[in-house]
Formats: sequence, structure tokens, C-alpha cells
Amino acid sequence: MKQKLNIALVGATGAVGSEFLTLLAKRNFPVNSLRALASPASAGKKVIFNNQELTVQTLTHNSFEGIDLAFFSAGAERSKEFAPSAVKAGALVIDNSSAFRMDDDVPLVVPECNAKDSFSHKGIIANPNCSTIQLLVAIKPLHDYGTLTKLKVATYQAVSGSGAKAIEELSTQARDFVNNRSLKHSVYPEPIFGNALPHVDIFLDNGYTKEEMKMVFETKKILHHPKLAISATCVRIPVWRAHSESIWVKFERKIDRAMAKKLWLKAPGIKVMDGINNYPSPLKVVGEYDTFVGRIREDISEKNGLCFWCVADQLLKGAALNALQIAEAYYDIKPK
Amino acid sequence: MKQKLNIALVGATGAVGSEFLTLLAKRNFPVNSLRALASPASAGKKVIFNNQELTVQTLTHNSFEGIDLAFFSAGAERSKEFAPSAVKAGALVIDNSSAFRMDDDVPLVVPECNAKDSFSHKGIIANPNCSTIQLLVAIKPLHDYGTLTKLKVATYQAVSGSGAKAIEELSTQARDFVNNRSLKHSVYPEPIFGNALPHVDIFLDNGYTKEEMKMVFETKKILHHPKLAISATCVRIPVWRAHSESIWVKFERKIDRAMAKKLWLKAPGIKVMDGINNYPSPLKVVGEYDTFVGRIREDISEKNGLCFWCVADQLLKGAALNALQIAEAYYDIKPK
Repeated sequence: MKQKLNIALVGATGAVGSEFLTLLAKRNFPVNSLRALASPASAGKKVIFNNQELTVQTLTHNSFEGIDLAFFSAGAERSKEFAPSAVKAGALVIDNSSAFRMDDDVPLVVPECNAKDSFSHKGIIANPNCSTIQLLVAIKPLHDYGTLTKLKVATYQAVSGSGAKAIEELSTQARDFVNNRSLKHSVYPEPIFGNALPHVDIFLDNGYTKEEMKMVFETKKILHHPKLAISATCVRIPVWRAHSESIWVKFERKIDRAMAKKLWLKAPGIKVMDGINNYPSPLKVVGEYDTFVGRIREDISEKNGLCFWCVADQLLKGAALNALQIAEAYYDIKPK
Repeated sequence: MKQKLNIALVGATGAVGSEFLTLLAKRNFPVNSLRALASPASAGKKVIFNNQELTVQTLTHNSFEGIDLAFFSAGAERSKEFAPSAVKAGALVIDNSSAFRMDDDVPLVVPECNAKDSFSHKGIIANPNCSTIQLLVAIKPLHDYGTLTKLKVATYQAVSGSGAKAIEELSTQARDFVNNRSLKHSVYPEPIFGNALPHVDIFLDNGYTKEEMKMVFETKKILHHPKLAISATCVRIPVWRAHSESIWVKFERKIDRAMAKKLWLKAPGIKVMDGINNYPSPLKVVGEYDTFVGRIREDISEKNGLCFWCVADQLLKGAALNALQIAEAYYDIKPK
């Protein structure tokens, strides 16, 4: 690709927005102009892109004139309201929210899995849920070899998945704990510090949370595998950044530990960290682009079953980086 | 039971030992005398039982003269070395360590599940692993109804499972974080604060950790269900106290949400906390005797499958309380 792009970044002041600003510069994305957009409350704030200060503008329906590519990362409500205006103005929207993910005419893309799906877009390409992305990067090479039939996943999710306010809430609770003050909370229904909450997103009628059902529906869509038997339990833990997952998978064809490692070692976007006392952890993986796998074991409870542990930085691969990689694949841009 | 017992408490200065001292008094256990034992490093320290100060004595092979009942809670090595001396002196040993759990002639007991097994002891009754106990309390009433065929569990384990030093390490790391100092660690191979480590106990040849295989072997033994298909992934998280577990179970006979709740509501040692925005968490369950279950859902990936979330205070039900309850059941003591 030779042409440089006029970019809009919706949610420029958020936790994911700030990663976008860093990544666009770091990966040498061909930016002609960058328009930083946010809610009226954040308008006038300054953000930094490529050592330049940008003034954040209020997001309106007229924000997208001349824009080629708009990254949305300001929640589902804002995407629903403003993404159609961006499309109407001629922009391609890559949306981080859940607003359009399950729409039939919106491709849902993890580039390592289904980059080609992007080309069937009608103006919007959706970026999957953070927990789903790392799961998919990890299971795709195994699925290609052995055909996945069943999947169970228990998550250990960082607070950064709930945005900048949650990051601050956990830090404040740490300070209050150390200073013997009672822990206050507003983002979560009880303190997350020193705790574990099996509650990510809202509760649905079937007893699952929306986050859990996102993992179910999005995985089936991305793999084009509607019959996959999958269930999830999503849990928030007091980690600032990087999600972890305990995963059980079952295949039509047996995949032993050696084969799993072999498949992962040649797969894109994956790092294997597996062995005695050797495994990925959130603190090790923060700031990394790759999805890390370890604790690889044959599932002793299941024929053709395998279990493993998977960690990724959900603000990078789970959000901004995956969205940017969708754009890179779509425009055939080679990142630095 | 009318007679009062002469008790020895091995590991009286540890995290579990201190819970024993509290519980023996609180539950009005018929204590005639209490001998507090520990390693030479702790000898001479004072501990409190029933508002009385006891001086900790050095554990030796001669520590058990006149003792009726000895609670061991000082690690597997010490149990292996000294429990036989206690038995030889005529004491009944209830051992919290993993030393004898899988021995054929040592009953492994969760009173809610298999209290009767205690009576076949040959001097030693073993207390199961903390993660196993709460799992078993939760699944036994379901198994009795529907016959368990498969079980997968991902744990979220508190640092108190690693003892008093680990509790202090997490607190120190919290202080260092708040004061912008780098995090030091010695109990765990990396900081546990703000992290999640899929590493509880040592690694075994099959890629599982010893903790994971304890859950497998102990569950089969306690349920007298050697053919149960079970696998576990054990993870340490920055929680001070109370273990959580994400559990998937499959039965011969269907158990839906309503039936699971019904079975649990009439089962001993269980509290149901289940509904929209209503679930147990470590902070809610600290200090509780019961095992709490919530997030009850039919497993949408499995015929006759159910998934749920289970939390218990592992220093109480996962250790000292369960050991004491074994004694209460064995001697037919009604606790206060």
C-alpha cells in the first residue's frame, strides 16, 4: 500500500485509545492525518501521537468527513450511534465494541484466523472481545490440524478490560489497603483488590454473563464452526493488565503435547512458554504483542483432549493491536 | 462423648495452626490439655488458646506421651517423620499434610462425604487438600443424585494456602507497589501481587502439578469412584484467603439449575448464593465455615453437564475446620 490514510480514533482518551496512539506510531502505520475523538467531557484534552500533541475533538455525526479509516473504541452505545455516520462519510470502521460483532453482514476478525473475512465488509469490521481473541489465536492452529469439537474456558481477567476507571479503582484500593483504610468501589459491585469476581459484563437469562456468551458466539463465528460445543466461565481478578485463561479442548484427531507445541511453534502470533516451572503469567506478558501458551497437558479426563494456559495483553492483542492488525491485513500494510 | 481429650497440635504457630487454636475454643471442643508443638525455631513462642497462653514446645518423637488426639499441620515431611511416633504413643493422628493421603490404609475424609471411612483408620486419618475439600462438599450431593462421570476444575487459590510467609509476601508486595518500590519475592517464583501463577506445588512428569494431581487422586478416593474422569488446572491469584473454583461436572442423570439448587439447599456444609449479580467471592466468604456455590448454569457444551463457581475459606473448611470436623464426627462430639 502506497497511499497514507486519514484516521479517526474514537475513544482517544480511553485505556485502549491510548494503546492505539502508541501502536500507530510504533508500527509505522501510514497515517496522513489523525483525528482524536471522544465524548464532550474529554473534548479539549491533549493526546500524544508520534511526539505531536493532538487536541481531542467532540465526537459528532459530522466528525468523519475525509476520513478513510475510523477505529472505534468507546463502548457499544457510541459505536451504534456514530459508526453508521462514519460509514456514510466513506470511512471503513474497525469497531472494538460488541455493537456489531454478531451482525451477519459484519465480519468478526482475528487476523491469524480469518483475515480474509474482512473483505466481505459493508463498511464495518468488528474486533472480537478481548478474551475471545487470545483464545482464538491459540486454538486456530490446533483446530486446523485436529478439528475442534469441544471447548471449555475459565478466564482470569485483568481490570484494564473494564477501562481506565477500573485500573484506577484497583490502584486506589491497593493504597487504601496498605494504609488500613476501608476499600471503596464503584466500577465493580465489591472490591476487586484481594478478591475474585465471577462477573464480567451483565447477567443473562440462562445464568451466563454476556462476556461468557460473547466467547461462545464469537468463537463459533470466527471459526465458522456453528456446531462447536463451548462454554465459558469469566472471572475478574486483581491483575492490572493481561488476561489469562485455563482452556480445555477436545479434537476429532488426537493432539498430544509434542504435536501441540509443534503446531504452535510454527503458528503466527503465538509464543510457547512451557516446561517445568516455565509458564506465562500476566506480569511476564504485559506489553507483548503475542499470545502466550504454556502448561500444555493431555487432558487426562477426555479422549483426544488437551488442556493449556493462555495469557495475552488484552489492551494490545485483545484490543488495539488486533484492530490495527485487521487494518494492516486489509490494506496489505507491512508493520515495522 | 463425655471424656475430655488430651490434644497435641503440631504446627501450632503456622497459618492453619492458629485457626485450630481459635476453632477448638470456639466450637467448644472437649479439650482436657493442649500441647502446642512446632519446629525448634518456633519453640518458646507463645500461642493463645481459650484466653490462656501456651508455650510452644519443640516437636520430638517423645512429644506424644499421654496424647489422645494429634492434629498435624506442619507439612508432609514432618508428618512422615513424627506421625508414626504419635500413633505408637497411642494417639489418633489427623494429618493435614499430603504425607499419607493416598495410602491404602489411611482414610481420607471430608465429613459431609465419607465420615464413616474414619472408622477404618489404623492410627492416622488424613485431611484432604484444601482445593479438594470444597470441591467434594459441593459435588457430593449432586453425585448422590445424578452419578458424576466427568469433572473439570480451574482453581483461583489464595496465598494463605502456602502458609504465613506467603500471606506476608503478598502484603509486602502491596506495600512496595504503593510506594513505587520493585516487588521482591521468595515464596513464589515471581511476584504474586497483580499476577496469576498456574503453579501450585511442584511440576510432575505428565505436565500436571502435584496440586492438580492431588485433586484428581483425592477426589476419586473420597468418592470411592476410581473411574471418574477428572482433570484440574490450579492457579494462584493475589487473594489473601479463600479459594475459588470454576467447576464443570457431567452426570449420568440430568441435573438442571433448579434441581442443583434443591439438592444443595438441603445438603450439609453448603450455602447457595446464586442469582443475578449474586455470587460468592473470596472477600464475602472469609471466616465462613460453609462452602459457597453460585453461578449455577447448565453446561451448554455438554449433555447432562452443569457448571458452577465454588468458594470456601481454605484455612477453615479447607484445613483446620475439616480436620476438627473429622474428630467431631469420629468422637461423636456436637460442636457449639
